[in-house]
Amino acid sequence: MEGTWNGADRAVETLARAGVEVCFTNPGTSEMQLVAAFDRVGGVRPVLTLFEGVASGAADGFGRMAERPAATLLHLGPGLANGLANLHNASKARTPLVCLVGDHAQHHRRYDAPLTADVEGIARPVSGWLRTARSARTLGQDAAAAVAAARTPPGCVATLVIPANCTWEEAGPAVEPVAPAGAAPVSPKCVERAAEVLRSGEPAALLLAGAALRGAALDAAGRIAAHCGARLLCNTFNARWERGAGRVPVEPLPYYAERAVAALADRRHLLLVGAAPPVAFFGYRDQPSWLTPDGCALHELARPEQDVGAALLALADALGATRSAPAASRERAFAPTGALTPEAVHRSLAALLPEGAIVSDEAISGGFGKLSLTRGAAPHDWLQLMGGAIGQGLPLATGAALACPTRKVVCLEADGSAMYTLQALWTQAREGLDVTTVVFANRAYAILEAELERVGAVAGPRAREQTSLDAPPLDFVRLARGQGVPATRAHTAEEFHARLGAALAEPGPQLVEAVVEGR
Amino acid sequence: MEGTWNGADRAVETLARAGVEVCFTNPGTSEMQLVAAFDRVGGVRPVLTLFEGVASGAADGFGRMAERPAATLLHLGPGLANGLANLHNASKARTPLVCLVGDHAQHHRRYDAPLTADVEGIARPVSGWLRTARSARTLGQDAAAAVAAARTPPGCVATLVIPANCTWEEAGPAVEPVAPAGAAPVSPKCVERAAEVLRSGEPAALLLAGAALRGAALDAAGRIAAHCGARLLCNTFNARWERGAGRVPVEPLPYYAERAVAALADRRHLLLVGAAPPVAFFGYRDQPSWLTPDGCALHELARPEQDVGAALLALADALGATRSAPAASRERAFAPTGALTPEAVHRSLAALLPEGAIVSDEAISGGFGKLSLTRGAAPHDWLQLMGGAIGQGLPLATGAALACPTRKVVCLEADGSAMYTLQALWTQAREGLDVTTVVFANRAYAILEAELERVGAVAGPRAREQTSLDAPPLDFVRLARGQGVPATRAHTAEEFHARLGAALAEPGPQLVEAVVEGR
Repeated sequence: MEGTWNGADRAVETLARAGVEVCFTNPGTSEMQLVAAFDRVGGVRPVLTLFEGVASGAADGFGRMAERPAATLLHLGPGLANGLANLHNASKARTPLVCLVGDHAQHHRRYDAPLTADVEGIARPVSGWLRTARSARTLGQDAAAAVAAARTPPGCVATLVIPANCTWEEAGPAVEPVAPAGAAPVSPKCVERAAEVLRSGEPAALLLAGAALRGAALDAAGRIAAHCGARLLCNTFNARWERGAGRVPVEPLPYYAERAVAALADRRHLLLVGAAPPVAFFGYRDQPSWLTPDGCALHELARPEQDVGAALLALADALGATRSAPAASRERAFAPTGALTPEAVHRSLAALLPEGAIVSDEAISGGFGKLSLTRGAAPHDWLQLMGGAIGQGLPLATGAALACPTRKVVCLEADGSAMYTLQALWTQAREGLDVTTVVFANRAYAILEAELERVGAVAGPRAREQTSLDAPPLDFVRLARGQGVPATRAHTAEEFHARLGAALAEPGPQLVEAVVEGR
Repeated sequence: MEGTWNGADRAVETLARAGVEVCFTNPGTSEMQLVAAFDRVGGVRPVLTLFEGVASGAADGFGRMAERPAATLLHLGPGLANGLANLHNASKARTPLVCLVGDHAQHHRRYDAPLTADVEGIARPVSGWLRTARSARTLGQDAAAAVAAARTPPGCVATLVIPANCTWEEAGPAVEPVAPAGAAPVSPKCVERAAEVLRSGEPAALLLAGAALRGAALDAAGRIAAHCGARLLCNTFNARWERGAGRVPVEPLPYYAERAVAALADRRHLLLVGAAPPVAFFGYRDQPSWLTPDGCALHELARPEQDVGAALLALADALGATRSAPAASRERAFAPTGALTPEAVHRSLAALLPEGAIVSDEAISGGFGKLSLTRGAAPHDWLQLMGGAIGQGLPLATGAALACPTRKVVCLEADGSAMYTLQALWTQAREGLDVTTVVFANRAYAILEAELERVGAVAGPRAREQTSLDAPPLDFVRLARGQGVPATRAHTAEEFHARLGAALAEPGPQLVEAVVEGR
């Protein structure tokens, strides 16, 4: 590039040099210099979204799969606010993510123009790192620091607020990328204590999270379990979990607290491997928040910011656990028939999921208790809702597809949840992303129907209306085609199996609306 | 109602007694007792939305038209975050609004479950009043205080965070509604000073905002202008503006700073009537943020929290201004022909708008400079984007229609902006609301095309792609029908005129996609 560089040019150049390849955007006036810099400088590919929650969710999906951050480009306080729920999810998933937010020029802030807002105040609850740029001269350093913060284990949302004048004023000199801090070292004492616990022969389980659910770390966990009979558990929701035939099987804790308590009831020891102690999703009047039984001791093998894989390898070594775990076996393809239930959808998925697929799972009530059905599917990555903020599934699939263009992405999406960030379909169509979306159309907030019963509330007609989505029914075939995504609908298990198979056989985005019965 | 009341029952009862009739909801598990209370107690009608930004925008529209607050019911930090952009708009519009946000039970907060977030931190930037309930016993008092705060002039977003256990535990005694504080009294000194300024005969203008744009206040402003030749101005964007044939005409400041500066250039005095000094929407390198010329004196007749109408009446009295202003005259109906331009859309609107209509205007680039075309339409209320956070138009129309069920609502919506909160259409269909939506489908973020030029950025192919919405084109007919709203498309002025006429003739929601050419 020739001529004088402005702050925007330097920011984009620095991001590219630090390994940020993609920026999910929904820009406005205050971000126009950054938009122009995508051409002037190059190295960062802007991907337009129609809503900021799509941008932030896609950056989460990209970061989970690429293991390096994508950026978002958002427009002042309100644009950030629209992306905040999926930044919350990314934050809970510990995804490396660089959140760029444009703001008014410094000289304009004191005028309290309509879009003036407390940008840092809005960003703070979801940001592991937060800075407002002070000058075009130092904006490159800010960008480098943001990437380093996002990449420092276990990963975080690093938010950089950029006043508009810092983009158009003259840049400072080029900036070297900042090396992120490495993972904190494993504690030999924690490894030794864990080995003692497992040698004792008392009923134990490993609760695996983060990197423990992937690759060599998962294999080591499998050897440990095979050696000493410990159970391998994971949380109900996981950022990225390598599953399927040939992989070490791990048992997820059930969503409902009473079932999770039952699953843990016979354990005397729970080893936390990159995981926090398991707690209930919600607090209830008559249910525990803490899920482990009174007599169960908790032991921390590795915290999320530590090298979880090294800890598992060290533990396997300490135990002499060399024998591989029995892997999940490939199950025979099985085309379900009859009524189209959530179970039938998962059975079709188990039969048809291509090898190396990435599954973005926001099936909510359509997925509870159904995970075991895909345990023997072709090996795949399973990505789940980490912060509980629905509206993640479609954007997450979008970002995962951009991170892994040679892999098929399947998005399992509840109809209620789909309607929060349905605009992701347009970005999938625009970018030609290889994503097949399955909508579980039960035409209800089925989880709330269940919760109304669980909290002991007598549901009158108004309350029941609050959980119903059938008047009018949402037509996801029209909603997808209206955004350029081919779509079909299935009412029976046979229809669904055929349509899912056809959708998966096509490259590019597809949607199948599964009109399901029952939970 | 029989039996023991819980906190949720008391909260809903108190809201109803304080005049809150409608609650726009997108609830989750932690709000189930409040949902159940809508049946047990009655008095507050829950209206389900598919996305929180629809709930908060609808509450804004309801509050602007009803002049009393609607409530929202949102689900923890992420649900609040999804509603935040339209709460920002409501806050800038000074709309009375009671924002109820459920949170984890107090005993559950310390477990850092996935949905745990800093709810107050997220709410603070948009809330004029903010409280977290401490007990079911005092939740009724909290609800009463929230309504009083929302209604205290000039109105604000009052946010009450409700931990789940405060809804299921036993309620305290019934609570009387709290009377909101009245408007602050008018300053006789300010009135006298304003009268002196106007008597001087030097070029002056009144900048009207808030209640000054309605009813007797607007009439008084008209008499003042007729008496002394002062110009009547308002900001580019206004919360609620009574316009059309028979009303006192007011001239809005242009959106672009340089044009607003030109519009004010010959004024020596600007009287602020419920308005802040006019400033540019964005700051630029080479444009002023402050719009009044150096030689122009600013005088505050009434601040937003004062009785703006009383101030104008007092000023008219002080001047002896008794002669009515020349009202805008009803213009002859005029059906445009040929190319479907934004101007043609506004001309059709001017001809077809029914008397008493409410217009929710988020046409953005499709509306700039076109307002004069509807000056002589049948009398109507015009509601605009106050905080600059796009995605307001459709929800605002939804809430206005619920507040005024006997009036036709017309929503002028840009295609880009429509995609932020398109889910409002479903609530319109479900509630059978009398809203006709016109989408200005120019298939671009046209305002950003203009802004790229204005900031002097040379737009390369990537930048141009960031402003384009045409690959794939959004099909608003399918997107509307997919949510149960009848829809048609028009490509010429004649087609549009016929389709808008047909849509307005039908009760219930309708959408017309206007494929417009040019800006």
